Amino acid sequence: MTRPPTEDIGSLGEFGLIAKIKGLLPQGPDIVLGPGDDAAIIKASDGLVVATTDMAVEDIHFRRDWSSARQIGAKVAAANLADLVCKGARPTALLVALGVPANLPAEWALELAMGLRDEAAKVGASIVGGDMSRSEKIVISIAALGSLDGRAAVLRSGAKVGDLIVLAATTGLSAAGLTLLKSSNIPDADRFEELLSAHRTPRLVYQLALDLATSGAHSMCDVSDGLIADLGHICQASGVKGRIDPARLDLSTLQDAAAMLSVDPLRWALAGGEDHAFVATVDPETPLPGGVRVIGEVVSGSGVEVVGIDVSHWLGGHDHFDLRHSRSSTS
Amino acid sequence: MTRPPTEDIGSLGEFGLIAKIKGLLPQGPDIVLGPGDDAAIIKASDGLVVATTDMAVEDIHFRRDWSSARQIGAKVAAANLADLVCKGARPTALLVALGVPANLPAEWALELAMGLRDEAAKVGASIVGGDMSRSEKIVISIAALGSLDGRAAVLRSGAKVGDLIVLAATTGLSAAGLTLLKSSNIPDADRFEELLSAHRTPRLVYQLALDLATSGAHSMCDVSDGLIADLGHICQASGVKGRIDPARLDLSTLQDAAAMLSVDPLRWALAGGEDHAFVATVDPETPLPGGVRVIGEVVSGSGVEVVGIDVSHWLGGHDHFDLRHSRSSTS
Repeated sequence: MTRPPTEDIGSLGEFGLIAKIKGLLPQGPDIVLGPGDDAAIIKASDGLVVATTDMAVEDIHFRRDWSSARQIGAKVAAANLADLVCKGARPTALLVALGVPANLPAEWALELAMGLRDEAAKVGASIVGGDMSRSEKIVISIAALGSLDGRAAVLRSGAKVGDLIVLAATTGLSAAGLTLLKSSNIPDADRFEELLSAHRTPRLVYQLALDLATSGAHSMCDVSDGLIADLGHICQASGVKGRIDPARLDLSTLQDAAAMLSVDPLRWALAGGEDHAFVATVDPETPLPGGVRVIGEVVSGSGVEVVGIDVSHWLGGHDHFDLRHSRSSTS
Repeated sequence: MTRPPTEDIGSLGEFGLIAKIKGLLPQGPDIVLGPGDDAAIIKASDGLVVATTDMAVEDIHFRRDWSSARQIGAKVAAANLADLVCKGARPTALLVALGVPANLPAEWALELAMGLRDEAAKVGASIVGGDMSRSEKIVISIAALGSLDGRAAVLRSGAKVGDLIVLAATTGLSAAGLTLLKSSNIPDADRFEELLSAHRTPRLVYQLALDLATSGAHSMCDVSDGLIADLGHICQASGVKGRIDPARLDLSTLQDAAAMLSVDPLRWALAGGEDHAFVATVDPETPLPGGVRVIGEVVSGSGVEVVGIDVSHWLGGHDHFDLRHSRSSTS
C-alpha cells in the first residue's frame, strides 16, 4: 500500500484525489482530449453524438453496506451504457460528476473510479472527465456519449403491429436479489449467489443489444423500471399494445427464492427493477441473435397485456417520489 | 395559475413532473432527438463533440434562501456553458440530472428548468434530456455538449512565453457579493446590487470568449476558482509563468464594498470565486475583441506572480473538502 488506508478525501484534498483518479483512466482511440482541461473532446465520426445521463444517490439507489465501491461504480456505469446500446449506439465516453462527504476514505473513491472504468472498458468507452463536490450523501451522476457509426438509431417509437417482442437477458434476478438482501436470516444464503450478484454486479449483454440494433430491431429499450413498465414506454411511444405470453418467460433461476419468500416469481420477472436486460420489437422475419427470447407480440391498442394475468396492482413503474413504495433501490 | 402552489414533487410524481418540464423545453436545430427516449441525439457536424460536466449541491454551491430557483438554474447552466466556450466550442446541448427531496414544491423544479433553459438559450443550446432522483439535499448535475464547427480547440496547454494575458469580464464581483450576503446589517444594501447580482445572476460574456477563440487565442480557461488559480492551471499545463500587473485590474466596482467591509479589493479580484470571467493568452500581434483587458504577460518559469504583491496566503484554489475554508459557495 502506498497510501495509508485511513486517508480521507478531506485530508487528501479534491485536487490530490482527482490527480490519483486521472492516473487510473486510460483513454481509448475515440478520445481526442481526455481529462485535465475544462472539457473533453470525443470523436463523433458520423456527425452525430448520442447522449444520456443517469444519477445514483446513496441510500436511494445503493447502500455502502450492501455493495462495494467497485460494484457501485460498475452498476452506475452500466445504467448509462445500457441507455446507449439500446439505441444502437456504441458507447465512447463517460463524464462523471461525484458528490462525496469529506470524511469518505479516498480509497473508496478510487475503487469507485475503477468500477466505472472497468465497466466502461467492456464496451470500449473511456472516462474523459468529471467534477467533484462535497455532499452529505454520495451522489454519482454520469453522462454517457456514444456513436451510431452511421447506423440509424433504434427508438422507442418504432414498434409496429405484428412485431415480435423479444427479450435479451433474463428479468427478475436483481429484484429477487434485492428482496433477499432486505430479508434477514436467509438460511444457506450462498445458494442464491446468482440473484445477489445480479443485484450487486449486473452483467449486461451490451453486445446482444447492439446485435439486435444492427439486425434491424424496430424499437428497443433497456429494462430498468420493470419489464412491463419499460415495454410500456415502447408501446406508448409507438401507439401500439404489447402482449406478453408469461409462459415464455424464463423463471427457472427465480423459483427457489420465490418459494422460500412466498413471492410470485412472475412479479419479479415482469415488474422487478434494475434488470439491465433489453426489450425490443422486431419483424417476425428478422433472424434473431442467439440468446434472445421471444416473449410476445405487438398488437393494435395501447398498454401492455400479460395473457391470463391481471398485473395492474404491480404497475406504476418505480417513481422515486412515490412514498407508498418501500423500495430503497431502483434505477 | 393552473397548478396549486402547494403541490410538491411527491404528490405530482416523477413522471408527472418530467412531463411538465418537457413541455417547457424547445429543441434547437442541432437536436436530432430531444427528451423522451433513453438517450438524445445531437449533431456534431465536424465529427467531434466537446463535453464537460459540473455538479452543484444545495448549501455547498447555492442556498435556496439566497437565490431563486431560476437564478440557481441559470448559474449552474452558466458554469457548464463557460467550460465549453472557453475551449472555443459553441454549446449545443445540456443533459440535466436532478436530485430533489420529495417535499420540494413542483413549482421550484419548474422554475429551475426555466432558468436552465433560458441560460442555455443565450448561446443557442437546448436541454435534451435528464434524470430525476430523490435526494435529501438538492443536487443539480449537468453535462454540456458543444461543437467546434471545424475550428481548433483552445486548450489550457497552449500558452507561449511572450503572450499577453487578457481578461474578458471583471473578476471579484461575485466574491464581493457573497461576502455581502454573509454579512448581516449592511446599511443601504441596495447600492451593492451589482455585486449581489453578480453572485446571484452572473451575466457571462460567452460571445467574447468565442471571439477570443476565433481570433486565435493560444490558451483559455474560465475563471471560476479565482483568477490566480485558473491562470495557474494554464501556466501549469503550458509550462510557463504568468505575471499579472495588478494596476491593470479594474477594481472600480469593488471599492465601496471593500472599504466598508475592510477587505482588500485585490483579494476579491485575484482570488475570489465564481467569477464567470475568462482568462486567455494571446500573441501580442493579435487584434483583441472590444471589452478584453490586457492584465499581464507570459514569461519563462512556473506559477503566477502578481507584481509587487505576495499573494501566497490567498491561494489554494477552492477545494470543497478543505475544511479550513469557511466558504459555503464556490464553483
